[in-house]
Amino acid sequence: MRKISIGILGATGTVGQMFVQMLDGHPWFEVTELAASDRSAGKSYGELMRSRWSAGAEIPEYARDMVVKECHPGLDCSIVFSALDSDVAGGIEEEFANHGYAVSTNARNHRMDADVPISIPEINPEHLGLIERQRTRRGSKGFIITNGNCSTISFCMGLKPLYDAFGVEKAVVTTLQALSGAGYPGVPSLDIVGNVIPFINGEEEKMQSEPLKIFGRLSGGAIRNAGFAISATCTRVGVVNGHTESVSVKLSRKADPDEVIEAWEDFNPLAGLGLPSSPRRPITYTRESDRPQPRKDASAGNGMTTVIGRLRECSILDYKFVLLGHNLVRGAAGSAILNAEMLVKQGYIDGQSIGK
Amino acid sequence: MRKISIGILGATGTVGQMFVQMLDGHPWFEVTELAASDRSAGKSYGELMRSRWSAGAEIPEYARDMVVKECHPGLDCSIVFSALDSDVAGGIEEEFANHGYAVSTNARNHRMDADVPISIPEINPEHLGLIERQRTRRGSKGFIITNGNCSTISFCMGLKPLYDAFGVEKAVVTTLQALSGAGYPGVPSLDIVGNVIPFINGEEEKMQSEPLKIFGRLSGGAIRNAGFAISATCTRVGVVNGHTESVSVKLSRKADPDEVIEAWEDFNPLAGLGLPSSPRRPITYTRESDRPQPRKDASAGNGMTTVIGRLRECSILDYKFVLLGHNLVRGAAGSAILNAEMLVKQGYIDGQSIGK
Amino acid sequence: MRKISIGILGATGTVGQMFVQMLDGHPWFEVTELAASDRSAGKSYGELMRSRWSAGAEIPEYARDMVVKECHPGLDCSIVFSALDSDVAGGIEEEFANHGYAVSTNARNHRMDADVPISIPEINPEHLGLIERQRTRRGSKGFIITNGNCSTISFCMGLKPLYDAFGVEKAVVTTLQALSGAGYPGVPSLDIVGNVIPFINGEEEKMQSEPLKIFGRLSGGAIRNAGFAISATCTRVGVVNGHTESVSVKLSRKADPDEVIEAWEDFNPLAGLGLPSSPRRPITYTRESDRPQPRKDASAGNGMTTVIGRLRECSILDYKFVLLGHNLVRGAAGSAILNAEMLVKQGYIDGQSIGK
Amino acid sequence: MRKISIGILGATGTVGQMFVQMLDGHPWFEVTELAASDRSAGKSYGELMRSRWSAGAEIPEYARDMVVKECHPGLDCSIVFSALDSDVAGGIEEEFANHGYAVSTNARNHRMDADVPISIPEINPEHLGLIERQRTRRGSKGFIITNGNCSTISFCMGLKPLYDAFGVEKAVVTTLQALSGAGYPGVPSLDIVGNVIPFINGEEEKMQSEPLKIFGRLSGGAIRNAGFAISATCTRVGVVNGHTESVSVKLSRKADPDEVIEAWEDFNPLAGLGLPSSPRRPITYTRESDRPQPRKDASAGNGMTTVIGRLRECSILDYKFVLLGHNLVRGAAGSAILNAEMLVKQGYIDGQSIGK
Repeated sequence: MRKISIGILGATGTVGQMFVQMLDGHPWFEVTELAASDRSAGKSYGELMRSRWSAGAEIPEYARDMVVKECHPGLDCSIVFSALDSDVAGGIEEEFANHGYAVSTNARNHRMDADVPISIPEINPEHLGLIERQRTRRGSKGFIITNGNCSTISFCMGLKPLYDAFGVEKAVVTTLQALSGAGYPGVPSLDIVGNVIPFINGEEEKMQSEPLKIFGRLSGGAIRNAGFAISATCTRVGVVNGHTESVSVKLSRKADPDEVIEAWEDFNPLAGLGLPSSPRRPITYTRESDRPQPRKDASAGNGMTTVIGRLRECSILDYKFVLLGHNLVRGAAGSAILNAEMLVKQGYIDGQSIGK
Repeated sequence: MRKISIGILGATGTVGQMFVQMLDGHPWFEVTELAASDRSAGKSYGELMRSRWSAGAEIPEYARDMVVKECHPGLDCSIVFSALDSDVAGGIEEEFANHGYAVSTNARNHRMDADVPISIPEINPEHLGLIERQRTRRGSKGFIITNGNCSTISFCMGLKPLYDAFGVEKAVVTTLQALSGAGYPGVPSLDIVGNVIPFINGEEEKMQSEPLKIFGRLSGGAIRNAGFAISATCTRVGVVNGHTESVSVKLSRKADPDEVIEAWEDFNPLAGLGLPSSPRRPITYTRESDRPQPRKDASAGNGMTTVIGRLRECSILDYKFVLLGHNLVRGAAGSAILNAEMLVKQGYIDGQSIGK
Repeated sequence: MRKISIGILGATGTVGQMFVQMLDGHPWFEVTELAASDRSAGKSYGELMRSRWSAGAEIPEYARDMVVKECHPGLDCSIVFSALDSDVAGGIEEEFANHGYAVSTNARNHRMDADVPISIPEINPEHLGLIERQRTRRGSKGFIITNGNCSTISFCMGLKPLYDAFGVEKAVVTTLQALSGAGYPGVPSLDIVGNVIPFINGEEEKMQSEPLKIFGRLSGGAIRNAGFAISATCTRVGVVNGHTESVSVKLSRKADPDEVIEAWEDFNPLAGLGLPSSPRRPITYTRESDRPQPRKDASAGNGMTTVIGRLRECSILDYKFVLLGHNLVRGAAGSAILNAEMLVKQGYIDGQSIGK
Repeated sequence: MRKISIGILGATGTVGQMFVQMLDGHPWFEVTELAASDRSAGKSYGELMRSRWSAGAEIPEYARDMVVKECHPGLDCSIVFSALDSDVAGGIEEEFANHGYAVSTNARNHRMDADVPISIPEINPEHLGLIERQRTRRGSKGFIITNGNCSTISFCMGLKPLYDAFGVEKAVVTTLQALSGAGYPGVPSLDIVGNVIPFINGEEEKMQSEPLKIFGRLSGGAIRNAGFAISATCTRVGVVNGHTESVSVKLSRKADPDEVIEAWEDFNPLAGLGLPSSPRRPITYTRESDRPQPRKDASAGNGMTTVIGRLRECSILDYKFVLLGHNLVRGAAGSAILNAEMLVKQGYIDGQSIGK
């Protein structure tokens, strides 16, 4: 099989680097283009990132000598992964889609567009059906798919097995989010060393709205949002990677604790599909009394597994538990890559350069 | 006015040190005895604490040359503040009370005893009425009063104005608690640097039960617990002092956000009583979008003020907000001292040595 | 005594805030002007700083309603404290001096000017004699005095008693510097959480050159630099306040360890002068085996005392030890204020508005 | 080739876990025995370590069901890796050696024994010759070899190329050491969050003495220590893994900076030997101005590479630089394993069970 050509937009940021890292040696995809702001364009990626590289021990060899380009259509690739900042992502992604590229983005700009899915392959693979509607609108083979916000994705992963098995009516969540979620330079050290910041701009709104679309039903070419209620409080803590979430849920029908755990442990809708970035288990439940913990558990399943623990009855809703997801992997680059793998599986990518 | 003589039990621990620090220059109280484990007894406090002192810049001068004694009745003082570990506090405090001492303790052992109040002067001053029942039982002038758990006290401070003005039916809370709450040596650094521990042994149970007694009604010599429901999740973060709490509440009757904030800001039941440790304002509401923060706000009102911020409507309960309290001051030593001041105000302490 | 009027340039930054804080209630000085960048000018200090204030629990009351001005001569004050960034400080300070103001600055720009002293009152009070030469050059009563770099000042404090008693020939120093030394926003949290950065731009050069001027001899209206050698390595660690320094020194003549400690403990050249910001003891030597530590010792003497510990023989030079100073107080604002107090003491300030 | 059987003493501690992790899939060695304190003996390793495992994402599968034994000869293995605490290591290791086991230990107890080498294969492979003398003394095939202290090993790695090329006469070093070097529970979080501890018990003595033996000459069956002088200051910082060291050296003969860097970059004495744990490059020199940094560079060469940067001239000695090594890998378990690989290469291990 010839590999599908990939471009990365915003390749120099925290999430962009993670795309570069995670696509190193990918069995289906091959990075052929790196693009970033005009300021970076024209320089070699290795030189640009020498002192800023943080996604792994070393810049992958394939990327070092690649010359960074500007973020304009004309890139030689079929799929574009976007790690652009939201202040520029909207227009650039639109342009790429209109020029025939498949855009899998981590930016928030198009998440709420009516014909753009917020895709999580384990949860709503049928939402990719919106792509046809998009193509019609654009008059182009190109399209945009998004992944949810970093704290939203793991939250939805934790809810999905309960939603399917018992129904979910309400969820109250307080997050303790990692620094890398704010990008670089992000949070000043004087604000967070020995401290907590109980606010992340725009985050609670995302956590309260995105899941309803993610769990929505595709019907007649449109998504009808799910109807449960979410109340989120988002805080920042001095952790490098891994968002911890304290969740209480009200279920639609009674469930024993054992049934809840079983629902999580049995959840594996992608098993057998052979998607390269799909972890062996999308969810693991830990019986340790003091886990999950970000520094110890964020890398489970190479960062693609949501780790859940501390299931207890909640005296107000039904159950409460703690979940943890790697915000840069499952919460960003890894999800966008898994989404693209699902696109291939479902036949939305033909493996030939669309953009040209 | 001659000062009332004070003994401190467990004077060498994290909370014990805070007693020593906060009583330096106290206008009503004078520390005449320091006591600790047998291992420490017989040594000068200054020498013992030289390398372990952490409650302030320097060991207060009055305490340096005091010889630490064992924790047995016979100490020359009227009031005993106890910062003992719960594995020994129960029996020792009982013994002191039976020998005629007024015991104001931070330990959890006697909190749930039927005739022992969990006292917060701003909330339940009438609960001190239980003392008479205790005295009868003991056949002694001595008695025990307790303060709540460190995360409970600030939580109750935040709820009280809402409870009085609108009624509270339900509260969901997730805490982000400071390291000093675990004492010394407490949490190993390898467990918390760049990490979160989503579990504190026994803490959630305390937060779910103690407030019901604290908000209870004294009637016929017994406390009838309040009836609202609490669901708590307690986590530990890499903060030195200051517990942050994310709270959602359901009120008994509708309230505007402005009314809620007004309830907090108007709350000052001890105003005019002249209790030395009572802060000018027991609660402050901050309008900054990203406050309260432990490193910046824990010392408000010398650590006695609960700082609240981020009031928002909650789509599941009615309101949510973030509150912060200094766990060693308002959450421990400061509350025990304020309790003792209230004892004096209400006439339970005659100012003469009871113990002898 | 009528108070001397003070203006603070760069009043909104990390060091500027510390000036505002430390001058609250100062017995000789009264802040009459706050100035900052054009962007801040025209707004009330309280409003500007509401969410950025970090120098203490609360913005001092006197400063809250003051309207921030631009940094141009015309400010109604006699002494100007400058906490300006070095990219603008040079010209602005020059302008103020030429207009007759006494400028006591923390910026590095003029430190190496031939007629500008790097003043540390305990070390080189006679260097203020350069002021006359400056006045002549300027044809104005105004002048500039500087304090050393934050890591330099405490380093020099530790060396001075040894220099006087035994002579110093060589010093090797490695610093572990606090985050607040980099200002705000300063060091990104992703760079320092659980990490060390073994480099601070320009810092080693300052530590190697400034002490030679500070210890220099004023002779014929010029300073002849001291002749010893310094080799510095500067690193950044995840500490909020307090620079720790590991120092090895070669002395000119033999000394017993007891003599070295005695030299430090006896050092108190400002005793009896009554300078308000002069600590009771400029240096304390701690016998604890694991001190000084920044979080526990940086506030000694309200941040004006240099704490030294761990004196040991060095097999290569003569002695080694660890010293600690508060980088924002003794290392910045506190030193500039002490310098101004010395100006008053020596008669360089007449207490009447010079600037107008 | 049949794999050589391995036992790990002290398998539950921080270093012991790292042995378990690093030997997973080792091409020459196979762990057949895990041993620890009597308290742990009899339990399965997986169960014992479930909540304490920290050496990687998951306990290696091979180790999970192994039953932990007591630390007494009788273990079924040829080589014993010891991660025992120094308060028990001395006698136990002696016993194993006397019973015919090859003991490669990380404990300090036997490092200074006259017939026990402190082995670093890149530096002193000929020191393994002491083994014969040991065997004669013991009347057994068994023996003990040690690796140096965690901060010593990387320090020596940095010095060795300079020692060979130019001679080393003096070295002044200040370390910033990671928390994992103190084991678990180790440093209390209240002592290190936002802080530095400028003291590590016994560490400076080790850094000042061990290198002289490591660089010594084996002659007539004894090691004659090297003659250069070392002065060390050891501090603890809030880093998880990776000791940073600020080093100044005086060389015996002049060298250009380029020659110094070349000496480091050309250093690779084990190249071609095929030792499985030998990194591709034992030393890398980084030209980034602010590296090496522990969180970013400690894992270079899977933790076996010493990373050096910031070479500058030193005005007192000749050169100064910053080096970094992973204290649990190259500084402990990884070095002990590399030592054992060298034993095999040199023929000291016959690959059959010695112990039985």
